[in-house]
Amino acid sequence: MVFRSIDVLPRLIGRRTFVTNPMQSIERRVPALVGDSLCQIETPCLVVDLCALERNVQALPQSLQQIRSNVHIRPHAKAHKCASIARLQMRESQTVGLCCQKICEAEAMVKGGIQDVLLSNEIIGISQYERVAALAAQGAKLTLVFDNILAIQQAQEVALNFQVVLYALVEVNVGQDRCGVDTFEQVLALAQCIEGASNLTFDGLQCYHGGAQHIRNYTEKRQIIDKVVEKARNARDFLAEKGIECKTITGGGTGTYLLEASSGVFTEVQPGSYIFNDADYARNLNADGESVSEWKQSLFVLTTVMSINTKQHSERAIIDAGMKAVSLDSGPPVIHKAIDCNPISLLEYRAGGDEHGILCLSDSQNSAELPTLGQKLMLIPGHCDPTVNMYDFLVGFCDEKVEKVWTIDARGPGN
Amino acid sequence: MVFRSIDVLPRLIGRRTFVTNPMQSIERRVPALVGDSLCQIETPCLVVDLCALERNVQALPQSLQQIRSNVHIRPHAKAHKCASIARLQMRESQTVGLCCQKICEAEAMVKGGIQDVLLSNEIIGISQYERVAALAAQGAKLTLVFDNILAIQQAQEVALNFQVVLYALVEVNVGQDRCGVDTFEQVLALAQCIEGASNLTFDGLQCYHGGAQHIRNYTEKRQIIDKVVEKARNARDFLAEKGIECKTITGGGTGTYLLEASSGVFTEVQPGSYIFNDADYARNLNADGESVSEWKQSLFVLTTVMSINTKQHSERAIIDAGMKAVSLDSGPPVIHKAIDCNPISLLEYRAGGDEHGILCLSDSQNSAELPTLGQKLMLIPGHCDPTVNMYDFLVGFCDEKVEKVWTIDARGPGN
Repeated sequence: MVFRSIDVLPRLIGRRTFVTNPMQSIERRVPALVGDSLCQIETPCLVVDLCALERNVQALPQSLQQIRSNVHIRPHAKAHKCASIARLQMRESQTVGLCCQKICEAEAMVKGGIQDVLLSNEIIGISQYERVAALAAQGAKLTLVFDNILAIQQAQEVALNFQVVLYALVEVNVGQDRCGVDTFEQVLALAQCIEGASNLTFDGLQCYHGGAQHIRNYTEKRQIIDKVVEKARNARDFLAEKGIECKTITGGGTGTYLLEASSGVFTEVQPGSYIFNDADYARNLNADGESVSEWKQSLFVLTTVMSINTKQHSERAIIDAGMKAVSLDSGPPVIHKAIDCNPISLLEYRAGGDEHGILCLSDSQNSAELPTLGQKLMLIPGHCDPTVNMYDFLVGFCDEKVEKVWTIDARGPGN
Repeated sequence: MVFRSIDVLPRLIGRRTFVTNPMQSIERRVPALVGDSLCQIETPCLVVDLCALERNVQALPQSLQQIRSNVHIRPHAKAHKCASIARLQMRESQTVGLCCQKICEAEAMVKGGIQDVLLSNEIIGISQYERVAALAAQGAKLTLVFDNILAIQQAQEVALNFQVVLYALVEVNVGQDRCGVDTFEQVLALAQCIEGASNLTFDGLQCYHGGAQHIRNYTEKRQIIDKVVEKARNARDFLAEKGIECKTITGGGTGTYLLEASSGVFTEVQPGSYIFNDADYARNLNADGESVSEWKQSLFVLTTVMSINTKQHSERAIIDAGMKAVSLDSGPPVIHKAIDCNPISLLEYRAGGDEHGILCLSDSQNSAELPTLGQKLMLIPGHCDPTVNMYDFLVGFCDEKVEKVWTIDARGPGN
C-alpha cells in the first residue's frame, strides 16, 4: 500500500471530487457543563451513566472469554457515532477495530484515531469511494462490503487512482432479505471479481442478520442464527473448494453475537447497542425465558415536567421529550426515575407529538401522585440508535455529576 | 421596556446563568454545493423545491384574502427551524412575526433578524426564562404562553432582573388534552396573576389543537374546530366580564387555520407545515371529500439505490434512507420520482431499519422494473417536521440545480 498525502489527491482526478464538498461549522448549544448536577442540565438531553457504560464495554470481551471464544470484536459505531466512545472500546482485549454503517461515521472514527474500520454497508458512486479511499490514503485500513459488480468496479477504479488497497467482503443475504446476495454462485462471482482487482484484497464474508437481534424468544432466535451460521459456513466452504480463502466471517449484533461467536464459523462479531441498552433489548429473553440482563442500562433521555393537569380521570404530566427527543419506533420510552426525589409513581409514556410526552399514572396507580412541575426525569429510550442520532451531544455523568460532554461526531442521516 | 446590552447581564445575577452554557461549533459535511445537479448531491439529503416553497409562502396570505380574513399570520418555525425561510415568510402581507416551540428556535430566529416571536409552548425553570429575557434584552418582542402560576412567577422574577417586559398568553386546553388549563376560572386566575406582574403584559389566549390538524374528514374536523372556537370565545368573554381584554387569540395550524381565521374569534393563525407539505397532510380531505391540494409538495428526501435484488417474488431495491433519514411516525414516505430517468414503476417503501429503506414493486406491478443501482430517487416524507429535524442542511433547488444550501439553525431535540 502506498500512502499519499491527501492534499495532492485532487490533482489525480480531473473532475468534481470528494474534497469539493467541505465541512461546515454549525453552532449548537451545549446542554451541560462538566461539574453540573443532573438537575442543572438543559433538557431534553441525552445522558449516559459512565459507570454503566464502562461496565458494558468491559463485559463484552468478558462474555466471550466465558464461552472460550477468541473471535475478534469490532464494536459497531452506528450506535454511538462518537469517537470518544470508540477509543474506550478499543482498549478492550480482542477488539480489532470499529464497524461503521456510513462513510461519515468512518471519517469520524479515523479522525478520532481508529485505524481499522469495516464499513458494513453497501455504498455506490465514484465520489463515495473517493471519500473511503481518502481515509485509506491517510493510513487507515478500510474494509468494504459488496453485493454487486458495479460497486466493485467503482472501488477498484478509485483505489487505483488513489494508489491505495481496500479490503473487501462479499455480503451474503443470511435471511434478512435486505442487502446481500442470495446464492453461492453469486458469492463466488463477486469474490472472483474482487480477486481480479489489483487494488482490492478479498477478505471474506459479511453475514449479519439485523432482524434477529430483536427476537424475544431465545429458542426461535437460536434457530434463526443456526440458519445464518449454516449459510455462512456453506458459502465459505463453497469458496474454499474454488481455492478462495475467507479470512474473515463477520456479523452478529448485541442480540445474537454469542451464538455467532460460538459457531466455529464466525471470526468476528459487531455488537453496537450493548454499550447503551434500551427498552427493546431489555424485552429479549434468555434460554431460561428470563429477561436478558447482561447489559446495564447506561443511556437515558433527561426530560423536564413542563405542565401538570390534575383534573380527575385526566391526570397527566407533560414532559419536554416528544418525537424529536426520543425515537418511538420500538415502543415508548420507560420512565426510569426522577432526579433528587423520592421514588415516583408508576407512570406510562404516551406520544404527545413532536415536542411533548404525556405521562399518565398506570391504571393500578390511580391514588398515586404525579411528579411535580419542573421535576427532571430519566427515560429509558425504546430504541437507542435512532435516539442517539437526534442529539449533537452526549453528556456523561457519574454519581449524578456531569463528567464528560461528548460530541456525537457523525450525527445525522449519513450523507 | 429598557434595552440593555447582553454582555452586562450576567453581573445582574449572582449564580450560574444562561451565558455559562456556550454555543459549540460542530463540523458537519455539506451534502451539496450551489450549482450542483440533483444527481451530484450526496444522499440521503433533504431537498426543497424553491419554486414550490415560494408558491406556498405566497399562497398562505392569498388563501386568507380569499375568505376576506385579516387575521395576523405567524408562521410556525418548528417546521423548518431555519432563519432563511423565516425571512422569506416575513415578506408576505399580514405576517407579524414567527411562532416557535423551543427556546433554541426563538434564539435562532432572533439571531436571524426576526424581531417578534411567540414561544407557543410552556417552559419552566429560571435558567430557561433567562434565555428568553436575554432575547428581549436585545430588543426582540417575546410572547410566552403559561398554564401555571409557578412559570408566571419565574418569568416575572427574571424579566424584573433583566429589566425587560415579556408578553404573556394563557394557554387554554381546547381539546387536545396536552398542555393548557381546562376551566375559565383557571384562565382568569392566571390572567390576573400576569396582570399583577410588573414586567409581564397580558396579551390574550393560546388555543391550538394539534391533533385536529391531521383529521382526514372535513366535517369531523369542522366540528372539532367549532368546539375549539366556542371554548376560545367563551374564555375571552369570561375574561372581558372581569375587565381583562384579550388582544390576541392565537392558534390554528396547516390543517385547520382557515376555520380559525373565519371564526371571528381568532386574531392570529400559526401554520407551519404548509411551506413543505407531506404525505400525511396530502391525505386530508376537503369539504367535497377530495384530497386537499392547496399546497405544493416542496420537501423531499433525496436517496440513492445502493443494492438491487432481482430474485423472483423477492424483487427489491434498497435505498440509503432508513429511519435516521425519514420519519416513519405518520406512515412511510411516498416515492415521488427518479432523477434523470423515465418515469419509474410504482414502488412501495417498506421499513428496512435505521439506515435502509426497502422498495418493492406494488402488487399490481409484478411485470414492471426496479430502478437501477445508483439511481437517485425523491421521497415525499410521511411527516415533514420530524424529518426536517434529522438534517443539518436543507438544499434548495430549482430546475434540478442547487441554488441554496441552508443551515437548519435550530435542529435538535430543543434544549
